[in-house]
Amino acid sequence: MRDKSKVKSQKSKAKSQTLKLDSRITLDYGSGGRKMHRLISEIFIKHFNNPILRKFEDSAELEIQKSKPDYCFTIDSYVVKPIFFPDSDIGKLSICGTVNDLAVKGAKPLYIAVSFVIQEGMSLPSLEKICASIANTAKSAGVMIVTGDTKVIERHSQDQPRPSRIKQEIFSYEQGRGEEIIITTCGIGKILPDFRNPTLSAKNINIGDKVLINGNIGDHEGAIILARGQFDFKARIKSDCAPLYGLIETLAKAKCRIKMMRDPTRGGLATTLNEIADAAKLGISINETDIPMQKSVKGISDILGFDPLYMANEGKVVIIADAKDANRILRIMKKHPLGKNSAIIGEVIRRKHGLGVWLNTKIGSQRPLLELEGFQIPRIC
Amino acid sequence: MRDKSKVKSQKSKAKSQTLKLDSRITLDYGSGGRKMHRLISEIFIKHFNNPILRKFEDSAELEIQKSKPDYCFTIDSYVVKPIFFPDSDIGKLSICGTVNDLAVKGAKPLYIAVSFVIQEGMSLPSLEKICASIANTAKSAGVMIVTGDTKVIERHSQDQPRPSRIKQEIFSYEQGRGEEIIITTCGIGKILPDFRNPTLSAKNINIGDKVLINGNIGDHEGAIILARGQFDFKARIKSDCAPLYGLIETLAKAKCRIKMMRDPTRGGLATTLNEIADAAKLGISINETDIPMQKSVKGISDILGFDPLYMANEGKVVIIADAKDANRILRIMKKHPLGKNSAIIGEVIRRKHGLGVWLNTKIGSQRPLLELEGFQIPRIC
Repeated sequence: MRDKSKVKSQKSKAKSQTLKLDSRITLDYGSGGRKMHRLISEIFIKHFNNPILRKFEDSAELEIQKSKPDYCFTIDSYVVKPIFFPDSDIGKLSICGTVNDLAVKGAKPLYIAVSFVIQEGMSLPSLEKICASIANTAKSAGVMIVTGDTKVIERHSQDQPRPSRIKQEIFSYEQGRGEEIIITTCGIGKILPDFRNPTLSAKNINIGDKVLINGNIGDHEGAIILARGQFDFKARIKSDCAPLYGLIETLAKAKCRIKMMRDPTRGGLATTLNEIADAAKLGISINETDIPMQKSVKGISDILGFDPLYMANEGKVVIIADAKDANRILRIMKKHPLGKNSAIIGEVIRRKHGLGVWLNTKIGSQRPLLELEGFQIPRIC
Repeated sequence: MRDKSKVKSQKSKAKSQTLKLDSRITLDYGSGGRKMHRLISEIFIKHFNNPILRKFEDSAELEIQKSKPDYCFTIDSYVVKPIFFPDSDIGKLSICGTVNDLAVKGAKPLYIAVSFVIQEGMSLPSLEKICASIANTAKSAGVMIVTGDTKVIERHSQDQPRPSRIKQEIFSYEQGRGEEIIITTCGIGKILPDFRNPTLSAKNINIGDKVLINGNIGDHEGAIILARGQFDFKARIKSDCAPLYGLIETLAKAKCRIKMMRDPTRGGLATTLNEIADAAKLGISINETDIPMQKSVKGISDILGFDPLYMANEGKVVIIADAKDANRILRIMKKHPLGKNSAIIGEVIRRKHGLGVWLNTKIGSQRPLLELEGFQIPRIC
């Protein structure tokens, strides 16, 4: 059933692309895909090299109190446009993204530092709305915002009005139009005792382990694509943006044995699974029919030619656990508000043809899910 | 000698300006002056309010291991243009600024998180130069870069060539022309035992305490003004950008009793002294003739109408200590490479006319140094 020639060509393509970096940074280098990983390993790791950074995780494990890692430390900058989108905004996102990077390491988020880079001209009500959103999200995630910084940068003269075909009646995110803010959040979390020895890591996983996810994929990127108003759809997709610690704490309290977790944000589920498979030097196969997805996300991806497996999520966690523990973990996840659509979507396998991630399709074939070079290009472009 | 009517009008001006914020954020809100402080207290503190944030310090004191503050946590975004300037660059600055915020709280900088927001089109050699600079500065400051993030944002179409009168022969910072990068660094430091009980704070200071600084003021902002190439000067000013922990550790090892420290960055010495005086509910008087300053900085400030007391520094620390300890601290500071031009520049006094900071001028008069509303406006504009 498998198309071997296609696999071979993709494999050799993947290999031939481990060449040198481009001479200038393009948007692809911020996509979460292979170009970004190469930038990280060939520039950042090269210069900043140390054992903690080399682990290539979204959070650094620190030894503060104990001689074993006990705290996690993470940073992320948020540059999303538009800054307001259905039921969420850049403020909520900037807290969720950072507390989730801590939570997936099994760490209870404690402290957040926030830095604002505001483009001059932002209205005070917009800034205040973002701050209220940050405050609410921080409260619901149980973290304290303890320090911050504010810079204001010059306005760029070319700010364009959005295309006329925007359906203003569909969304109420008009506030924020033409306004720009970059928010960087940095978080410190304390690793829960259950996840401390060993710490959650791709190194813990074995062939036969099950792969779980806590719900529908692609909602966040779907919401952003629609909120940009470049396409004339009547669909409404809400971002899944949510702090995940509550769900993870529930699993910890129930003494669920988890081997590793990761949040499939930029680059989506396929990219995250590739990172896990590469770190573990194993393979992962997932079943197309088991992957939870909203009809509206499936719809806009079909039309625009995006693959939802590569679309960003902001309230999802991929969990890997021993096969004998997976069903119990699934049951507990399904009872949590953020896990209603949880599913076991695949398992850990041996690498095949040197490639890490394989999709068992609806029609019974198997195709590799390569890491993208950069951004997805919609078919309509 | 003092001009009382002027003082009164300045005081009433200062009071009348505690009005509501503007409806839109302007560059002034990022200047380090009164507008920024109002934004922080009226928006950020209002929404994020908690006892740690309310201390209004550049670093948050955390209780991690002990029930007394033992760690410091700080964040800063760096948006300087040009990104390369004589003997320094945005990379070095992004490490110095953050490790100095830790050092002035008496904390040994340990871990740094770095987030890059790169404008597409940046050349790889520029990025690599910045990374090498970050790595070197981190090494010299004894900190480890343990985690990071990378985003790439779209290029703005209006990027203008710089004015033709730039003297290219004066500086070799041509690399970086038209390139933009925003770097956010977040740091964790461990408070040295000598500075733990009580922690360094404006609350420790008393009337009669002495004010010290470790050298010339205004060098960083002077270097940036010249590097922008908007003025046709032949002068060459180096930024003072340097990690201060070494100097502070030397003072700690010598058991110097320090009451508080702060780095006079954005807004300069005058703004920092105002912050200290306000936090202590006391006054500070400084002597114009005692303030160390390079001739070239004095020169360009005189011509452009900037007040060097409000110009940013990136390798300076203001230290407040008991009068009986000040001379010994000064002697030790002068022996350190970063303290050769150290001086005792003033002392803590009672507030006068409700105003915190007073300058005893060369000609023997005394004038208040108010906090600026926003940026300094050069006379020539």
